[in-house]
Amino acid sequence: MLQVICPRFLVPVRPRSRVFENWAIVIDTENGEVVALGESASLIRRFPRAEQVNLKEHALIPGLINMHTHSPMTLLRGYADDLKLDDWLQNHIWPAEQRWANEEFVTDGTRLALVEMLRSGTTCFSENYFFPDRIAAEAERAGIRATVGIPVIEFETAWADSIDQYIGKGIELEQDYRASKRINFSFAPHALYSVPRTALEQVVRHAEQLGLKIHLHLLETAWEIDHARAQGYGHPLELARQLGMLNPGLLAVHMVHLEDSDIDLLADTGANVIHCPHSNLKLASGMCRLADLVAQGVNVAVGTDGVAANNTLSMFDEIRTAALLAKGRTQDPEVVDAMTALEMATINGARALGMEQTIGSIEKGKQADLCAIDFRHARTQPVHDVISHLVYAAPGHQVSDIWVAGQQLLKQGELTTLDEHRILDKASAWAMKMSAGAFS
Amino acid sequence: MLQVICPRFLVPVRPRSRVFENWAIVIDTENGEVVALGESASLIRRFPRAEQVNLKEHALIPGLINMHTHSPMTLLRGYADDLKLDDWLQNHIWPAEQRWANEEFVTDGTRLALVEMLRSGTTCFSENYFFPDRIAAEAERAGIRATVGIPVIEFETAWADSIDQYIGKGIELEQDYRASKRINFSFAPHALYSVPRTALEQVVRHAEQLGLKIHLHLLETAWEIDHARAQGYGHPLELARQLGMLNPGLLAVHMVHLEDSDIDLLADTGANVIHCPHSNLKLASGMCRLADLVAQGVNVAVGTDGVAANNTLSMFDEIRTAALLAKGRTQDPEVVDAMTALEMATINGARALGMEQTIGSIEKGKQADLCAIDFRHARTQPVHDVISHLVYAAPGHQVSDIWVAGQQLLKQGELTTLDEHRILDKASAWAMKMSAGAFS
Repeated sequence: MLQVICPRFLVPVRPRSRVFENWAIVIDTENGEVVALGESASLIRRFPRAEQVNLKEHALIPGLINMHTHSPMTLLRGYADDLKLDDWLQNHIWPAEQRWANEEFVTDGTRLALVEMLRSGTTCFSENYFFPDRIAAEAERAGIRATVGIPVIEFETAWADSIDQYIGKGIELEQDYRASKRINFSFAPHALYSVPRTALEQVVRHAEQLGLKIHLHLLETAWEIDHARAQGYGHPLELARQLGMLNPGLLAVHMVHLEDSDIDLLADTGANVIHCPHSNLKLASGMCRLADLVAQGVNVAVGTDGVAANNTLSMFDEIRTAALLAKGRTQDPEVVDAMTALEMATINGARALGMEQTIGSIEKGKQADLCAIDFRHARTQPVHDVISHLVYAAPGHQVSDIWVAGQQLLKQGELTTLDEHRILDKASAWAMKMSAGAFS
Repeated sequence: MLQVICPRFLVPVRPRSRVFENWAIVIDTENGEVVALGESASLIRRFPRAEQVNLKEHALIPGLINMHTHSPMTLLRGYADDLKLDDWLQNHIWPAEQRWANEEFVTDGTRLALVEMLRSGTTCFSENYFFPDRIAAEAERAGIRATVGIPVIEFETAWADSIDQYIGKGIELEQDYRASKRINFSFAPHALYSVPRTALEQVVRHAEQLGLKIHLHLLETAWEIDHARAQGYGHPLELARQLGMLNPGLLAVHMVHLEDSDIDLLADTGANVIHCPHSNLKLASGMCRLADLVAQGVNVAVGTDGVAANNTLSMFDEIRTAALLAKGRTQDPEVVDAMTALEMATINGARALGMEQTIGSIEKGKQADLCAIDFRHARTQPVHDVISHLVYAAPGHQVSDIWVAGQQLLKQGELTTLDEHRILDKASAWAMKMSAGAFS
């Protein structure tokens, strides 16, 4: 079936900075592709049998790509805040996960995350958590696009008890989804300091063979650099280079503590940086040198991190803060302008995933992963500048409609594939269970 | 008439950090006061004839107080972004204001701001713009509480053409509203560098006589300090001291560039700091030493600034960024915790306005200025920590109900005193008019 979608403003991201008023796009809901773009009246004439979707007050943009999250941690939203990273992880988050993070937790937490992500404009996410099989299954069922990380960490969890088992189960899982149109996988070794070198070498080898990205927490804290030196590994970035990780296959998450030479190295090798400003601020990890990375041509995409460290999955919130923080940090209001921030949430994410031919912009032949934002709210009126509104004003809740691969997952504010009421009830039940459990 | 309001969570702000589950409050809609607080079932029995308002999934908090804004500038939302302060003001904002900021602009812009503020939880604002008579009239008509600034600046505007006229018209206006329950006034000299010393002396004298606060942009940029020195005035804070402004009557807005001794001086004199983190980041003015101010006991409240520099009026967004930025700046995640941030938007604002006996917390005998936030959304589930959700997760759009002085201005998501549809249409018409005008 064909649909002709007629927004007030079309922001295809490519060509860059362009806003087309009273244009439309035609999508094929079967193969999920964008068939045509052009002036509305003319497209409606060319495709008279296409179903017409009128979005008279809306901006239509590519779906947002959340490049780093731990979806199931939605169930730990607000569980432990305002704490030092060590205390937060060791005395709160890890014990909670040890106790609660089983298959049911991951299922219910992922579903809650999917509701929040779709409702706030995200059509694709890069995930990193235990039970990737459950996460992949829930994403596939809901119809969202995902690159699910195969977790690799030294300690035992409910999902696997050894490095070999993490990797082995992950590779099997990747095979199972070879036919999926929406689900891909990456390797997600936790961090250089928490995974043994031999295991990292295995990951690099398998990633090359299978053509998978490596999704890795890197240079999040100053401690990490000191630790690597104390362990005799030198600088973490040097270790990553030695391991053969510094290339376009790397999704290096956080990258807060960077020297000039590190930025040059990233630019030269094509490694991708995944910037998570809210998480970096909240855990006081530091402030990423975003403006310098962008100026040097490093591909920077954006992630929300998990909600235990954020506390939302809103990509609109994330890019607004990314742009503002870069200005504040450099004391230069011209750096990371609105269009640059919007690219970080769309085409740059696609590029990092190696999917820039498929998603990240609205172009003929690309997948119809789309997000419509209703501007008929006080917060986005009047409209002098559409791109400014998308980055500096539009909150996620004004997202009214979402398509992934041509399938409409959010339709005039209603989710079509998820039972939101039941998912919220389950989340609420988890709070009660965990609060009772805390005293038992 | 009495109403018994039964939220799931009551966060009265005083006593500090307390969350009462299944408590209720009783308000008198005639005199606007809170009559009683207590366990729901018992209050319902005690007040059997009171109208019952059930907010089963909601948190009820004091209405938020936006301590610095330029409401009519909503009509310049997204008009000029990503620019240096000088360029932004001199080549974009001021020329636009010179051309467009007449009585009609102020009326329509204020109405748009009132929609946005009420919808995002604000029940009281401290205003600073031309045509304060129009702003006061619109606020009174809508039922919101406001302290309207009497503008004092050296240049001529459509409202007044001399310092004497600004002050004279302002004093008359203040007399006119003596009987108002909701509208108060302050003096709002633009800044120490843009108002002559003799005029500042007049302002201080009148403010003392009339018992009005002084609302002043201060230490926003590093330039301001250099400029004062070059003009032979010494440090701006020293000039403020000499003028007799450094006392609890001062609402010092921005205060970005502070030495340790400045912070001591603020603490000693009881001057109030109004922190505007989004504006400071976006215009790259710098980052306020919020954690140090709080640690030294300075009363810090929060403002959004106008939307030309923000680009929203959401106080929830503002306190989240205030808390996160303080952590990032100091690299200490324990500073400015969620409760401290919530106080900055409520009781601290009330204290700055000299209204801490009337508003800023939900207590018996205080005015019923209330805000209910619906937690039945993916973004605020599950609920482990109500105060964390209010600061780190809750977006303004989850505000469902608002009372000011016992009058319900937002009722289950519908505004009761403002014609939202017409106001949005007018805003949209302004964009067309200004865009056409730009080419004429």
